[in-house]
Amino acid sequence: MEVTSPIRDLIERLKQGDVSALARSITLLEEGSLDIPSVDTLLGAANPSLTIGVTGPPGAGKSSLIDWLIKHMRDEGAMVGVLATDPSSPFTGGAILGDRIRMQHHFLDEKVFIRSLGSRGAQGGISRITRDAAHLMRAAGYRYIILETVGVGQTELDIMNLADTVLVVLVPESGDFMQAMKAGLMEIADIFVVNKADRDGAKQMVNALKFLTESPESGTGAWQVPILLTNGLDGSGTKDAFETVRRHTVFLEHHRQTGQFLRKRQHGLKQLIVEQLSVKIEDLINEVLADRYRAELMDPSVSLYSIFNRVMQDKGFTGKLFG
Amino acid sequence: MEVTSPIRDLIERLKQGDVSALARSITLLEEGSLDIPSVDTLLGAANPSLTIGVTGPPGAGKSSLIDWLIKHMRDEGAMVGVLATDPSSPFTGGAILGDRIRMQHHFLDEKVFIRSLGSRGAQGGISRITRDAAHLMRAAGYRYIILETVGVGQTELDIMNLADTVLVVLVPESGDFMQAMKAGLMEIADIFVVNKADRDGAKQMVNALKFLTESPESGTGAWQVPILLTNGLDGSGTKDAFETVRRHTVFLEHHRQTGQFLRKRQHGLKQLIVEQLSVKIEDLINEVLADRYRAELMDPSVSLYSIFNRVMQDKGFTGKLFG
Repeated sequence: MEVTSPIRDLIERLKQGDVSALARSITLLEEGSLDIPSVDTLLGAANPSLTIGVTGPPGAGKSSLIDWLIKHMRDEGAMVGVLATDPSSPFTGGAILGDRIRMQHHFLDEKVFIRSLGSRGAQGGISRITRDAAHLMRAAGYRYIILETVGVGQTELDIMNLADTVLVVLVPESGDFMQAMKAGLMEIADIFVVNKADRDGAKQMVNALKFLTESPESGTGAWQVPILLTNGLDGSGTKDAFETVRRHTVFLEHHRQTGQFLRKRQHGLKQLIVEQLSVKIEDLINEVLADRYRAELMDPSVSLYSIFNRVMQDKGFTGKLFG
Repeated sequence: MEVTSPIRDLIERLKQGDVSALARSITLLEEGSLDIPSVDTLLGAANPSLTIGVTGPPGAGKSSLIDWLIKHMRDEGAMVGVLATDPSSPFTGGAILGDRIRMQHHFLDEKVFIRSLGSRGAQGGISRITRDAAHLMRAAGYRYIILETVGVGQTELDIMNLADTVLVVLVPESGDFMQAMKAGLMEIADIFVVNKADRDGAKQMVNALKFLTESPESGTGAWQVPILLTNGLDGSGTKDAFETVRRHTVFLEHHRQTGQFLRKRQHGLKQLIVEQLSVKIEDLINEVLADRYRAELMDPSVSLYSIFNRVMQDKGFTGKLFG
């Protein structure tokens, strides 16, 4: 995609911390009018930042936990961004407006940027939008970027894979627990948060989680997944959750050579390649369907393979990639 | 993929009708060592041929119908090929050897080539292998190419999309009927064959199918899906089935301009593009995972986008396709 001069200006303003430029850029992402790989050099080297995934079943209290995390991050003076894709979250407008405002203690804080994401016109899906939006936020100087999803499908797991640290939020209900296990949340959790910890069954849930997360590798430098108790109403335990996130960051930093960091990055690059090239394939197909190769298609003596070869040639493709 | 001299020789022999060259080529396809777009010019213009899909639930009698169709085709003197992907079919070795031989009346006929397909080492799945194998058979002079699948999943529907004419084979059992409807067989049928027509319920099934296939467009040049009764044991109705296939071909020929032919070809080209490029993307990803970009991946200050851009550059990609 060609980088036009208005896009250059927008990126420049975004890098200077202009919130409206950031909001506009994310809208362009959603509309498919901004291609991050093309502007990557303009964005410059990534600022040090932490991407934190928060996932769990609907009603687990993700939003109130995030509210408290934002508070602890703001106490540090850092800029915080939230990208929400959970349709049941008050951040994405799933709840009524009153709720939405009530829950967002940080609604009027200029250093907190909250955005719900959709993929209106863009190809490649919501996980691509989320990754690209997080990248823009890093360039805009956000120190913490929180990704909120409801833990159900592959798309949500893909989004969580974008995070450095993943918090899985559960409430003491065995049904939720089973669902979370089935959804693959056990495998992606760096930290478990049992919310509404005053409820019956909290202790049993903690025990079950301990049983499931105990690693035979413990003591050999592996991360032992902590299980924390919180209460979204009074915020108890949430400071500890924030400090555990920081501890996980230090762990990642120390163990960069040992695999997890590399695996995450490899996975991310893989996802990026698949998404970017899939979008291009879709463009190509739309062109094919738009009657461009009609004459060849109507002639049964011309094989589809030779039309395919012609399409590749027409697109100026002579590189080694598909050689 | 580079076309080596042994491959050139193989294609040359195949075009001269050498059955062992055809068999070997299909094995190479399955192993991922033969790339049809690269050899398409060597294969030359496609011979006139008919590709006939035969699908339906397991036990519907697809194989015995195919056996009879082969007979009628051979009575014309034409060469016939069968590509079977139904794992329950005797053609693919799903049944015991005795069955296999008993059912293949044409086992010793040199002009009948029967092959069960798998996708051992090849990327892109069994529908790609089937399409490419059918293309090789056309180059080898086969007039009729029968594709047999069990009607269950998307892969099987993809294979049926490769056929000019699709026969859906059912037996008079309401369970099978419901399953076939759910599997999307109603939409792809050009001809319905109710096999084991002597069984109870055959008439009701025919009535139900008539009800479902009656098109409001009838009389305006649309194809009215015929519903035929056959008996695999004595072959009754199978000659009619064959003649209906021929009638459908004439219909397609007459209505080439009206859409169905173009839609099939567009769909085929789309599938080809997706498959071919997906395979290349997978190759690219394997390279990325093979530690080639390890240094960049280990450095958190290098963004994944810039690594992506470097990967594209390294692959010599400077064309407009991804511009």
